[in-house]
Amino acid sequence: MASQQNCTEPNREDLPLVLLHYQPPFDIHIFKHHLRPYFRLLDPSELPEPTNPFSSRAKSLRALVSVGIFPVTRETLSLLPSLELVVGSSAGVNHIDLQECRRRGIAVTNTGPAFCEDAADYAVALLIDVLRRLSACDRYVRDGLWPEKGDYPLALKLGGKRVGIVGLGNIGSEVAKRLLAFGCSIAYNSRRKKDSVSFPYYANVSDLATNSDVLILCCPLTDETRHMINKDAMNALGKEGVIINIGRGALVDEKELVQFLVNGDIRGAGLDVFENEPHVPEKLYALDNVVLSPHRAVITPESFEAAVKLVLANLKAFFSNEPLLSPVQN
Amino acid sequence: MASQQNCTEPNREDLPLVLLHYQPPFDIHIFKHHLRPYFRLLDPSELPEPTNPFSSRAKSLRALVSVGIFPVTRETLSLLPSLELVVGSSAGVNHIDLQECRRRGIAVTNTGPAFCEDAADYAVALLIDVLRRLSACDRYVRDGLWPEKGDYPLALKLGGKRVGIVGLGNIGSEVAKRLLAFGCSIAYNSRRKKDSVSFPYYANVSDLATNSDVLILCCPLTDETRHMINKDAMNALGKEGVIINIGRGALVDEKELVQFLVNGDIRGAGLDVFENEPHVPEKLYALDNVVLSPHRAVITPESFEAAVKLVLANLKAFFSNEPLLSPVQN
Repeated sequence: MASQQNCTEPNREDLPLVLLHYQPPFDIHIFKHHLRPYFRLLDPSELPEPTNPFSSRAKSLRALVSVGIFPVTRETLSLLPSLELVVGSSAGVNHIDLQECRRRGIAVTNTGPAFCEDAADYAVALLIDVLRRLSACDRYVRDGLWPEKGDYPLALKLGGKRVGIVGLGNIGSEVAKRLLAFGCSIAYNSRRKKDSVSFPYYANVSDLATNSDVLILCCPLTDETRHMINKDAMNALGKEGVIINIGRGALVDEKELVQFLVNGDIRGAGLDVFENEPHVPEKLYALDNVVLSPHRAVITPESFEAAVKLVLANLKAFFSNEPLLSPVQN
Repeated sequence: MASQQNCTEPNREDLPLVLLHYQPPFDIHIFKHHLRPYFRLLDPSELPEPTNPFSSRAKSLRALVSVGIFPVTRETLSLLPSLELVVGSSAGVNHIDLQECRRRGIAVTNTGPAFCEDAADYAVALLIDVLRRLSACDRYVRDGLWPEKGDYPLALKLGGKRVGIVGLGNIGSEVAKRLLAFGCSIAYNSRRKKDSVSFPYYANVSDLATNSDVLILCCPLTDETRHMINKDAMNALGKEGVIINIGRGALVDEKELVQFLVNGDIRGAGLDVFENEPHVPEKLYALDNVVLSPHRAVITPESFEAAVKLVLANLKAFFSNEPLLSPVQN
C-alpha cells in the first residue's frame, strides 16, 4: 500500500487545486470520490481551527465547487482574488452571487443538464396529478371513503391542454418533449425567442398566461423573475388555470397564490418549491386542488451521480482550456 | 312546436330500434341526447311494470347498447333472438357474456379508443408517482413533517427503466408512446406478436417480467388473463420491480400482491383497480410504496363525451352496413 501511494503521490502536487465550498455536515464523499483522482481538493472543514479556511492557498485558487446550495457570497468571492470558475452542483444557482461573478468575469456552471430529465418527469407527474386528482384519489381510498361515498368525481383530461412553459431551457425543453407525446400544445416565455423551436413565443408572461390552460415554471430565480407570477399573471391565467412550479418558490407571489387557490380563482397548483422552505403555507393543507411536494423534483440518486460527473467534466474542461459543458449565461 | 313535431314524427317509426341496457339510477341522459335523433330508443325503465322489459319488441331487436358495466348475461341475450350487435360504452367489456355472443355470432364493440388517452395518461402518472413517491411526498408535507424531519428520501428515476406492457392494444400503445418520450425502453406481452411495432415481444408474461423493471397491465380481463400476474410472475419481476394496474383488479392475484408489497418482495405498485371494488385491501393503506386510486384511470368528462359519440358511430355504421369502428375481437 505504501509503495502504491509513493507511486502516485509525487505527481499530486502538479494537480490543479479545487476548493470544495459547502456547509457541514453535508456529505461530500461522492464529490471527493469522483474528483480526487484529478484534483487536489481543499476542504475547509479539514483545516485546523481557527485558520481562515481560504487563507493558505486562496490567492492562487482558480476554481471552486459549490456543493449543494450553501451561499457563495460576494464576501466569499472577495477572499479568492484569482478565482475564474464557480462550478455549481445544482440546477438552480441563485445561491451564487451571479452579479459579482459577472463583474469579475468569473464563469459559473450548473448541473441543469444532469437533473433536467428528473425535473421534467416530476413536472409532468405534478400536472397529471393536479388535473386527474391522483394524490387526492389516493387520500380518498386510504381514508376508506370509496365504499362509503361512492365514485370519486370526474377530473380533467390532459390531452389538448394549452401548456405555457416559463423558461424553455434544459428542463423546459424536456417538459415540452414529454407533453407533446400526451397531445398538449406548447407555448413559452423566456428572456429571448429561441430560433431552434417553433412553439409560439410570448415576451410577456401575462400574455402567455392569457393563452394557456397551464403554466409550468422552469426558469431560474433572478431579480427579473422574482414574483413574476403575480396577481396580474394569475388573473390572466383565469379560473380554469393550473400552475406547476418546479423552479423556485419565489417565482410566484406565494401569498397571492394561496388566496387564488383558496378562493377558486385558479383551478389548481402542483408545487414542489415554496418561498420559505421547508415551511409550506398551512392553508394549502386542506385543499384537494393542490399537490404539495418537498422540493424533490430535481433529485434522484441516478441524476445525483450524473451531476457529480458533470461537475468533474466542467472542471476538467476548464483546466484543459476546453469549452465548459454547462455554463450559466449570467 | 306541434307542427315541428308533426313534421319529424312520421319518420320516427322508420328509425332503427335500439335497446338501452343499464341499471337505474344510472343517468343515461347523455346517451339519449346523442342517440335519439337517429334511433328509436327502448328504455326498459320507461315501460309499465310488470311488463317484461324486452317482450314487446324484443323479437325484432337487432342492437343493444350496454350502458356502464351492468352485466349483459346469457339470460338477457336469450330474450333477444334477433340480436346482432352489443355496443359497449366502456373500455373493458368483461361484463358482457362474450362467449355467448361469439357462439351466436353477435358482434361486440367497446369504447377503448375514446378512453385510451386518459387511461394511458393515468398509467404514466401512477408510474412516476410510485417511482418518485409523489403521493407519499404530498402526505409528508400535509402532515407537517418536512420542517420536523427534514428532506424526504431520494426516490427513483423514470428514464432508462425497462417497461413491460401487458396488452399492447389501444391503451398499451398510447402508454408506450408516452414513455418513449421519457427515455424508457418498451417490451410487451400480448396474445399475438404485432407486426406493426418493433418492441421486443414475450409470449410469456413471466419472461416479460424477468426482463422488465416495470409491468403495466393494460389488457382485458378474460378467462385467460385472470390472475395472470401470480406469484411466479411477481418473483420473475423481482424485488426492484413495480406493477401498474389500470386494467382490471383480477388480472392480478391480489392476495399475493399484498404479500409481495408488505414483505418488500416487489418495490411498489400503482393500482387503479382491485378484485373486489370498492373494497381495497386495508393492509395497503399503511404502505408508502403503493398508490391507490378508485378506478378513475379511464374517465374524464371529455372522454366520456367521446365515448358516447363512438357508441353512436358504431350504431350508425351497423345500420348502414359499414364496418364497425371499434369491434372487440371476441
